[in-house]
Order: sequence, then C-alpha cells, then structure tokens
Amino acid sequence: MRQTDRQREMEVMQILHMNKGVGETSYAQNSKLQSKIISITKPIIHDAVQEILRSNNIESMGIADLGCSSGPNTLLLISEIIDVIIRTKSCSIGLHLSATTELRVFLNDLFSNDFNTIFMSLPAFYNKLKQEKGPELGSLFISATPGSFYGRLFPARSLHFVHSSSSLHWLSQVPPGLDSKAAGEALNKGKIYISKTSPQCVLDAYALQFHKDFSLFLKSRAEEMFGGGRMVLSLMGRPSYDPTTPASCYQWELLAHALMTLVSEGLIAEEKVDSFDAPYYAPCEEELSLALKKEGSFLMDSLEAFEIDWDGGDGDQELHHTFDMVGSGQKVAKTIRAVVESMLESHFGKDIMDHLFQCYAELVSNHLSKSRTKYINLVLVIVKKD
Amino acid sequence: MRQTDRQREMEVMQILHMNKGVGETSYAQNSKLQSKIISITKPIIHDAVQEILRSNNIESMGIADLGCSSGPNTLLLISEIIDVIIRTKSCSIGLHLSATTELRVFLNDLFSNDFNTIFMSLPAFYNKLKQEKGPELGSLFISATPGSFYGRLFPARSLHFVHSSSSLHWLSQVPPGLDSKAAGEALNKGKIYISKTSPQCVLDAYALQFHKDFSLFLKSRAEEMFGGGRMVLSLMGRPSYDPTTPASCYQWELLAHALMTLVSEGLIAEEKVDSFDAPYYAPCEEELSLALKKEGSFLMDSLEAFEIDWDGGDGDQELHHTFDMVGSGQKVAKTIRAVVESMLESHFGKDIMDHLFQCYAELVSNHLSKSRTKYINLVLVIVKKD
Repeated sequence: MRQTDRQREMEVMQILHMNKGVGETSYAQNSKLQSKIISITKPIIHDAVQEILRSNNIESMGIADLGCSSGPNTLLLISEIIDVIIRTKSCSIGLHLSATTELRVFLNDLFSNDFNTIFMSLPAFYNKLKQEKGPELGSLFISATPGSFYGRLFPARSLHFVHSSSSLHWLSQVPPGLDSKAAGEALNKGKIYISKTSPQCVLDAYALQFHKDFSLFLKSRAEEMFGGGRMVLSLMGRPSYDPTTPASCYQWELLAHALMTLVSEGLIAEEKVDSFDAPYYAPCEEELSLALKKEGSFLMDSLEAFEIDWDGGDGDQELHHTFDMVGSGQKVAKTIRAVVESMLESHFGKDIMDHLFQCYAELVSNHLSKSRTKYINLVLVIVKKD
Repeated sequence: MRQTDRQREMEVMQILHMNKGVGETSYAQNSKLQSKIISITKPIIHDAVQEILRSNNIESMGIADLGCSSGPNTLLLISEIIDVIIRTKSCSIGLHLSATTELRVFLNDLFSNDFNTIFMSLPAFYNKLKQEKGPELGSLFISATPGSFYGRLFPARSLHFVHSSSSLHWLSQVPPGLDSKAAGEALNKGKIYISKTSPQCVLDAYALQFHKDFSLFLKSRAEEMFGGGRMVLSLMGRPSYDPTTPASCYQWELLAHALMTLVSEGLIAEEKVDSFDAPYYAPCEEELSLALKKEGSFLMDSLEAFEIDWDGGDGDQELHHTFDMVGSGQKVAKTIRAVVESMLESHFGKDIMDHLFQCYAELVSNHLSKSRTKYINLVLVIVKKD
C-alpha cells in the first residue's frame, strides 16, 4: 500500500527526535558539533538581533528557536540572545528601545522532542539570569511550541527574530517515490541518501522535496513575522551544485556501508536497507536563493559557508600532530547516533544499534585516516519585507 | 539552617508533579476525580467563554489552562473550549466574532510536569479536531509555558480566558514556621495538614500562606489579562469557616494516620512525619472573596460549591446498594497517590510508597464504611475590570 504524503509526514513528525535524557548516547551529551556551529554563528546572530532593535520600535519582542532540541545548546542560545539585547539596551542612545522591553521566547521542535528535560533546567536558568542581569533582564517568558516548522506554528505577526540551527536540513518526509514498495524495485539500492551510485530520479526527488519544504517554511514564517524581522538559518549544505559531493553526503555513505556490513553478517535483511532513506537534504547556496526569490516575502541579507570537522573539533589537531583517528571515529559515530537513532531504531529495531554504530565508528576512523572530509554549514540571514 | 521563602518555593516548584507516564500509578490513569470536577464545571466554562465572545471584539483569543497536568483531562478541556467557541461562532449574529478568530492556547504547569506525554498526543489531537471541525477550526496554536502561576507567566495583556482546575489549592510553599527545625519543636506533631489537634498558629500559618499566594495569583493574572476577560477557577474548598472541618482535611488526617502506622512499624522515623507538611489549603468562600476585593482588579461573577465523592464516583451508588467499600478505598488511595507521591517520595523515600498507600487504602475503606465524607469543590468565576 502506498503511503500518502500526510502519512509520511506524520511518521517523521512522530519518530524523529534527538536521543532523550542525559545518558551516554543522549543528544545532550553528544551535541558538541551543533554547539560548535552555534558558536561560529554567534557574531551573525548578534548582528541580526542588533539590526532588529535598531530598526524597529519594539515593546514586546518575539523570538523563536526552531528545532531547539534538548541539551546544553537549547538554553545557551537563549542566553546569547538575551545578552545581545541587554548590551544593546545599555548603549541604546538613538535606538528605538524601551527599557521595559518584554521578551517572548518560543522553543520549538517536533512533538517527540524531550521538552521535559529543558523545562527541568529552567528554574536554575531563570535564577542565574536574574542574578547576572538584575532588573535589566526585564520580563522574560519562555514557552514551548511543539510541531513541524513546515507549517504554521505561531500567531500572525508575533515574531521579530527567528533562529534555526542544525534543523532545516531535515525534510518533512522521505521524498515520495523513493521506497521500493512504491516503485516496484529499489531505486537507491544499498544506500540511504544521495550517493554517487544513485540514479538521477533519486537526486531530483530529494531536491524537489527540499524545495517544497523550504518554500513552505518561508511562507509560514512570512505570516508569523513582523516586517523588518530577521531570521538566522544555519543548516548543513554543500559547496557545489553536485549533490553527490562527499562534503554533503559521505557521512550517509558510510552509514549505508555499516548497514550493508550488518546485512552481510545476516543481522538485517537487505530489503530493509533498500527501503530506508533519510529525510535529509544538504542544499547548495543557489537552491536557497532560488526558493527565497520565488516565495518573495524575504530579502537575503547574507549567506556564508563554513567548513566544520565531522567530530566538531577545532580543526587545529593536525597542526599539533595529535589527531586521534580512533577517538575521532567514535566521536563522529556518537554525534550521528544521538541524531539519527530514533529513525534507525524504528526501521531496523533496537537490538542492532550498538553493533551498527561500532561498525560505523570503525568505517569513519578508516575514512578519516585517508581523507579529512568536512561538513559545509550554510548560514543565511534574511529580512522580512515590510 | 532555616530555609528562605525562595528555597521553600523552589522545592515545591521542582518536586511537585502529578505521577508521570501512563502506568498503573500514573496521574493519567488515576484522574477520574479531577475529570469529574471538570465535567461538573463544564456549563460554567461554557457560559464564561460565551460571555467573553459576546462582550469583546476578539481577533486572536488567548486561553490559558493553569495547572493543566498531564493526562486525558488536559486536552479534553481544550476540546471543550474549542467546541464552545465554534458553536458560538455558528450562531454569532450580533456577536463581535470574526470568522477568522485565531486561538492561542497556553498549557501551564510546574517545571516537572510531564509535558512530553501531552505533546506526544498532540498530532492525533490536531488531526481529530481538523476532521471533526473542518475549516471552522481556524488557526489553533497550542504551546506550553512551564512555571509557577504564583507569579507572571505570560506577556502583558495577552489572555482573554483563564481556567484552572484542581490546582489552586496547592500552595507555592509549605507555610514558613511550621517545620520543627525552625520552631525548635514539632508544632503539628504526627500530622501533615491542618487537623483537630493542630494549634491555632498552624491554622493561621496556612491561612496566611493561602492569602498571600492567591493574592499574587490575582495580581499576576490582572497584568496578563484583557479587560472583560474571565477566569473560571475550580479548587478544593470547605463548607464552613472552620478549617478543621472533615470535608477539607480528613483525607490528610488519614494519610498522617497511615504514615504514623509506618512509624509504629519502624519503617520511618517519627521526626520525618513531624517535619512534613503538605503545601495545600482548602479555603472557604469568604477567604476567596476577601482576597479578590483586596486585590481589586477583578469582579466576582459567581461562586458555587459542589460536593464530590472522594473516589470521584457519581454519588448514586448508595441508591443501588452497590457501594464497594474496599474498591472505593483503593480508588481513593490511587487518586491521592498519583497527586502527592512526588512530594512524599522526596521526603520519605521511594521504598515505602507501596506499603504506605496500601495502608492508606485500608484506612480510607474503614473510614468510608462509617462516614461518607465528601470533598467540597469551589468554582469561582471572575471578570477582569476594564
């Protein structure tokens, strides 16, 4: 039976979540890569928030973090934004800035995100802020809005600043038409994302799904944001138009390889691998610009690309001749596991997870010893037209 | 070392929560009493929402459920409110009601409430609503705001309707001065709430804490609500001025009795019971009216009192001669356990919980065979002045 788009979407919405809690395989313990990305984008967030405050007369500022996940990064970002606002206030001569600005912060992620863990850390977070900032903090209201950002999440004209990091490369659903059941045969045999061996129709299906999703994202935010409001969107991307370039897909290539190793060991059926595809896409700059232009509600302010080591490291290890290949493979495997385990577990079963990621860690170590493939992270700043 | 008010408050905020999940001792499985109370107040909620729609021109309606907990009751209430709004819209001749009214629903409870379980049930809830209501549903945005309602939770002038059921009888903290460490000796020996044997100072401490808390609740909501907005507040109360009346405290009397039984069995230290007091208060109507008048931002619309069976039953069992004493004792024990276990566990330890509530169930059965003590639930409707 063919799944409808809605069913596919519900599947991703209900299953995809970063690993919960604070244990060894949790996202909270294995999100150094994502934290590194946030720290790189910090100055960009800083400038965007300042621009908003400079050009708008804001009494109550609406801020949303889309795909906030659950871990140290979640509240770190909120801290950063509050810091910028208070610093901007304190030198606010000539700015449209009231001393009584109210901050409304909305944390968003899918329904199965571990919001409980975020909430449990809020009392300490509020106390620390009050101690550090004193009365300058003003009124701060933090709430959570669960749901897919590919669709409306917030009331009309309620947001001034929208941030999203390490989230928009997740599609709303696996592109329709990829799974073997629908097409009668496996289109993306032995692979779980775009690969050098993927036929053109697989590449097209992914590109189309991303375009649809990103356009709907823009349209939804356009209704929710005030004119002059800004978005800082940070996501995995690729350096060239070719979607099979290693920087955008080699982490999936190796994960498919690990799965096929388990197939050869008789631990999973080959059809299971053939019928799994990741709801993920790393776009190039042109794809983002095109969707933005077509949708029409936003203006591009800037678009930058950064290289990031797979293990979220500082990239200076080579200089010190201390690069630990095995340790790095394990770090990469843990980082990826914390992010994709919920999906893999639901498709392949819980039992093989430890073995799969051990095998993956070895493949990653082996690969990194030959080639230091890096991620490309794109950071886009866009402004809502008046 | 004496605790500060802030420390006491943090304790309640971080510890108090209904039992999580959906297991045998969960609140979700044992909240029939609270569900019964909501169903009794349904017509009152209905009228209040209609009045708001009649007298205000609302484009975007803000609705908060304070102390929403986690279980079937949480979303049931939201359904009810949406029903009223859609029904009112459909016969809206002469009403200030736009067809495009946007609904902003804020679910609130303490930081340790199980919001994850609520969120997991939201996709099915949204789908069901869309199927049942069609386009009439309009835009519905559900979010969660964790924190104590004894203080600001929401932006200024953002709410039209506030509901709270089975929550406002919980104090922000155990009244200061009750614990033996502070006074040098146990003031409320062998008891955990107001009892016939409690000295006057215990009664006064509880009454004062309630007055402070309820006044702060009103003050906070006054800032958050629009003029003409309404609150329906439903909480445990008492039928007379005497705070030692069984209707308001006998469930605690029996729980203290159960704890003292465990003391006599050598399972817990007597000092542990002496140093525990419930952060709970069942006010009388006069106390509510007085606090309301003093605060000054709201007008009383109505105040009603209902009797409720301890087990949340329909109260007609006697007519059918089918009253099951043992089963009823167990039901009451499960209902109370789902609500107070987090606090008791943190003070007395996890190990004694099963035994404690078994003992409590027997005491309740025994008591109900002699006297059918009932709860008094007060329902207050108040209107925010312009």
